[in-house]
Amino acid sequence: MHYEELAELGQQLRVDAVRAADAAGSGHPTSSMSAADLGAVLLAHHLRFDFDHPEHPGNDRFVLSKGHASPLLYAMYKAAGAIGDDELLTFRELGSRLEGHPTPRLPWVDSATGSLGQGLPVGVGIAMAGKRLDEIPFRVYVLSGDSEMAEGSVWEAAEAASYHQLDNLTLIVDVNRLGQRGPTREGHDLDAYARRLHAFGWHTIEVDGHDVEDVDRAFAEARSTIRQPTAILARTLKGKGVKAVEDQEGFHGKPIKDAEAAIAELGGPRHLHVEVRRPEQGVSQSTLGGKSGGEVELPRYDIGDEVATRTAYGHALEALGTARADVVALDGEVGDSTRTEFFAKAHPDRYFESFIAEQQMVASAVGLQSRGYLPYACSFAAFLTRAHDFLRMAAVSQAGINMVGSHAGVAIGPDGPSQMGLEDLAMFRSIHGSTVLYPSDANQTAKLIATMADLDGIRYLRTSRGDTPVIYGPDETFPVGGSKVLRTHGDDDRAAIVAAGVTVHEALKAADTLEEYGIPVRVIDLYSLKPVDKDTLDDAAAATGCLLTVEDHHPEGGLGDAVAEAFADGRPAPRLTRLAVRNLPASASPEEQLHAAGIDAEAITAAVKLLVERVVTP
Amino acid sequence: MHYEELAELGQQLRVDAVRAADAAGSGHPTSSMSAADLGAVLLAHHLRFDFDHPEHPGNDRFVLSKGHASPLLYAMYKAAGAIGDDELLTFRELGSRLEGHPTPRLPWVDSATGSLGQGLPVGVGIAMAGKRLDEIPFRVYVLSGDSEMAEGSVWEAAEAASYHQLDNLTLIVDVNRLGQRGPTREGHDLDAYARRLHAFGWHTIEVDGHDVEDVDRAFAEARSTIRQPTAILARTLKGKGVKAVEDQEGFHGKPIKDAEAAIAELGGPRHLHVEVRRPEQGVSQSTLGGKSGGEVELPRYDIGDEVATRTAYGHALEALGTARADVVALDGEVGDSTRTEFFAKAHPDRYFESFIAEQQMVASAVGLQSRGYLPYACSFAAFLTRAHDFLRMAAVSQAGINMVGSHAGVAIGPDGPSQMGLEDLAMFRSIHGSTVLYPSDANQTAKLIATMADLDGIRYLRTSRGDTPVIYGPDETFPVGGSKVLRTHGDDDRAAIVAAGVTVHEALKAADTLEEYGIPVRVIDLYSLKPVDKDTLDDAAAATGCLLTVEDHHPEGGLGDAVAEAFADGRPAPRLTRLAVRNLPASASPEEQLHAAGIDAEAITAAVKLLVERVVTP
Repeated sequence: MHYEELAELGQQLRVDAVRAADAAGSGHPTSSMSAADLGAVLLAHHLRFDFDHPEHPGNDRFVLSKGHASPLLYAMYKAAGAIGDDELLTFRELGSRLEGHPTPRLPWVDSATGSLGQGLPVGVGIAMAGKRLDEIPFRVYVLSGDSEMAEGSVWEAAEAASYHQLDNLTLIVDVNRLGQRGPTREGHDLDAYARRLHAFGWHTIEVDGHDVEDVDRAFAEARSTIRQPTAILARTLKGKGVKAVEDQEGFHGKPIKDAEAAIAELGGPRHLHVEVRRPEQGVSQSTLGGKSGGEVELPRYDIGDEVATRTAYGHALEALGTARADVVALDGEVGDSTRTEFFAKAHPDRYFESFIAEQQMVASAVGLQSRGYLPYACSFAAFLTRAHDFLRMAAVSQAGINMVGSHAGVAIGPDGPSQMGLEDLAMFRSIHGSTVLYPSDANQTAKLIATMADLDGIRYLRTSRGDTPVIYGPDETFPVGGSKVLRTHGDDDRAAIVAAGVTVHEALKAADTLEEYGIPVRVIDLYSLKPVDKDTLDDAAAATGCLLTVEDHHPEGGLGDAVAEAFADGRPAPRLTRLAVRNLPASASPEEQLHAAGIDAEAITAAVKLLVERVVTP
Repeated sequence: MHYEELAELGQQLRVDAVRAADAAGSGHPTSSMSAADLGAVLLAHHLRFDFDHPEHPGNDRFVLSKGHASPLLYAMYKAAGAIGDDELLTFRELGSRLEGHPTPRLPWVDSATGSLGQGLPVGVGIAMAGKRLDEIPFRVYVLSGDSEMAEGSVWEAAEAASYHQLDNLTLIVDVNRLGQRGPTREGHDLDAYARRLHAFGWHTIEVDGHDVEDVDRAFAEARSTIRQPTAILARTLKGKGVKAVEDQEGFHGKPIKDAEAAIAELGGPRHLHVEVRRPEQGVSQSTLGGKSGGEVELPRYDIGDEVATRTAYGHALEALGTARADVVALDGEVGDSTRTEFFAKAHPDRYFESFIAEQQMVASAVGLQSRGYLPYACSFAAFLTRAHDFLRMAAVSQAGINMVGSHAGVAIGPDGPSQMGLEDLAMFRSIHGSTVLYPSDANQTAKLIATMADLDGIRYLRTSRGDTPVIYGPDETFPVGGSKVLRTHGDDDRAAIVAAGVTVHEALKAADTLEEYGIPVRVIDLYSLKPVDKDTLDDAAAATGCLLTVEDHHPEGGLGDAVAEAFADGRPAPRLTRLAVRNLPASASPEEQLHAAGIDAEAITAAVKLLVERVVTP
């Protein structure tokens, strides 16, 4: 396209953004208008994308980090012929694919955006796949707002991008100087952004974001820059082209009042069609093939040995990586503690050291899975809370990622509460479509690490720091949604202790003591917290009438809530009691910690006795 | 002290760090040894601190961001005479104040550290208090590791510090080049850190961190730098002074094997005492007095009016700020939507715009409360998940902060799932010692905003985007841990609907319909989710035998779990059913969203009918 035509295309995108928001009665036209010329040049001159085959491995990727500017994205889709004008005007309607913020309900969207500062991190993950794994010359374009540059996650991404020399990544910052409620800190000072990105190892280009020739040259320069990512810092005006709103405060996230006049001012509707370039030839879909290998030879542990579940995770992941070429691993600079280092040493080409940047670690995983890889990302369970918003958005993105959190609970001992995962089960359970697993021994851990590979959504497995006895044979199976009854005397059981992870071993000790007291109890290892094994819990309730849950986690959101939820279906519920970490721990040995929190064998024994004594037999 | 003596003090701190970790059998001596000379110079020449009066407003503040280097901190305390040698050797023992990572169980620690990348953000909050509120010339010193510079939160803090021209803040980065599992990205490249901090508006000084004269000059230069914060980038060696570990990988977080030899190599124990300088004269404790003003004149709304709870929050906070001079407010660049802007306009001197940096927003609140202020920090409920790790650590810090999350649930309508708070109740409930409130009308919101001011710990209030009818008079009271029975027919009630926020209004509509069907029901407004009103729930269970919870939140961790937990005390539980958001929402109107999620009046009516029909009357 000639530059004049490109400018016309920019106006068309503006008009269509205004029209879409007007039809919806809500949305962000002014944030779309500032970036319209950037979008026009990218779409018409630089992006290589086969809209008929969005899964084509050679496709470039476009991540709209400023997801609220979705009217621009949808106007671009229309210009490319991917959607029609009718669909454009369904924006934000019930059942429309054109949501307020883009999600993968649209086949051309890899990951959902709308929580700001996440587009670049995910784009880094996609670009890492291209650079280090696929070795396919696709490019990743991320269009970001200027306000979101205040998010720390952007700087985690900036550092990762230059560290990995992602010259296949271009960030375009739409510097329109206005945030939601007023001016940004930096206003139109492009240099301020350039200085920072430059200091983080980026190539930067400053342009007038409404000069299509200038923008075009910048994209070309980005494409020819090697060994570092490029940021195009574009000076733009919010609401560009419509005097009533242009460069003014108070018009964020609002349709333009007089849309008809605005469209006229923009020169009226246009009907330009863009033939988007297809990906380079020679890149076939099969490039991503052959990722699945042979049978997984999981580690095998002997019953009675003392092995930490974190260690079993490390060995199992290493084995999974040997069997499957699509497995990749990430860790937050604690791989020697979490045991991800076993994988890192065995498969260095598929290991991504994320340093102490948990948000970027999760975003990298989301980016990698969008390219067909199977990521396992691991840190201390406590520090995964750092990435909560990324995990939440990963669920909206319908991403399939495996998360592993080590150093669960007070059982870690002397390091103290800052290092203890005590909220992680609540966090992961509350994420849409998640799976939450919490094994108690090494063989169980290994099996579950392999099983989670084939699930959908966000899968979480919690590991423990200390050694625990191996209680299951290496050939035992552990279906997701299952549990194991470790002790039972059938209908003689007076109560059922429901435990997971470290408390399983405390529960077994308590069961021994209780048996000595003449109180037979059932012990259930509820290794699958979501989904939960309702049938086994029902049986236990029917047999005993009272259940005691015990968990190394705060009382809210964990095992106790999972068990209670199993009975929240309108049927009569059994008597329930729960033991959990209600104190604020300090330093102490693991045994002292379990005792202080009231979740050790002694506390379980006392609680069961109390519970059983209170039951009036009919 | 002469420089030779300072160097001796550095050796003493190393020896004591080695001894403490040796006594504990765990801990991080090598990370302490790299920073020992920095600590010595700071303690002896620059810090002004009255250890007998840690609450003295003129005290400088020292935040050990690399909290794992706690042996250094405790060795400094010993050198200053604040603790004795006996206590030093209780490091990491049960009951000792000297925890693995420092917490405010020690009177000289303002906030807990140990989750990396949080010390600078909290330090920024403390420095903001000094600069913008107290106007007391204390200084804030933050000692950070180099690894943790990879955390995005550090760069949120860096930007906030230069924006607020915090020349009372000095960051010391202990660049020992080694992280936990190996080298950092930047190694000993001090320039790499300097370039970045400089680009973010900081004054930077590069020094040899083992040259006490060099370090001393740097601290003096930091003190004389105006209108910008200073970072001292210190080249150091991990394990400095003990050849067996110095500058070597594999010795992170481990006591030194041959401690005796190491102590000998360091020149043996020393007994230097440091007279730490007291704060400047003329700064009295009363500076922080007079913060409480008159009666709060809360906004009053008429029953039947339609008012969004977010609006009531804004007006109530403004009123609270008028009555109490210690109230400060923060928002994440969405104050026009959350309504924090009402406070910002009325009390601009006590409003802190945090831009889109939720981690820094919470850290600022933690810092401000440590100086005696009463912060309210607000963003969309969904985006508060970004600060989960900071909230978790705030609880360990025993901080008292008020958090407000707006745009709760699917009821926001067309913006889609990225903007919907659907995990926030789970997150806040699982935080130790938290309070969780979720009002349904404007008067209730106003009252709870005032009430939460006087609670301890992390207080959370959830607001809604859309207008809802005012159902309570302005003089009604809403104790924390209470609830309101909005409909009842006494023992004739066939079921109880337990709701909060927007679902209260749906429940009332359902109750009307059910009454037409001849099914009288009780409606409980459970505005306090933690603590929860067990008595009222017990009464409802006794009267009806079956409870239906309905919430605009994922099924895990919210209202349903809170109600279930109320019955998890070993007593027979009622039949429970829960309605919650189980779908992945898209764009739609608020009404369509509530309907699609199955939490509107129609869904409640259907669920109650089903529940009641299943109950076999005795």
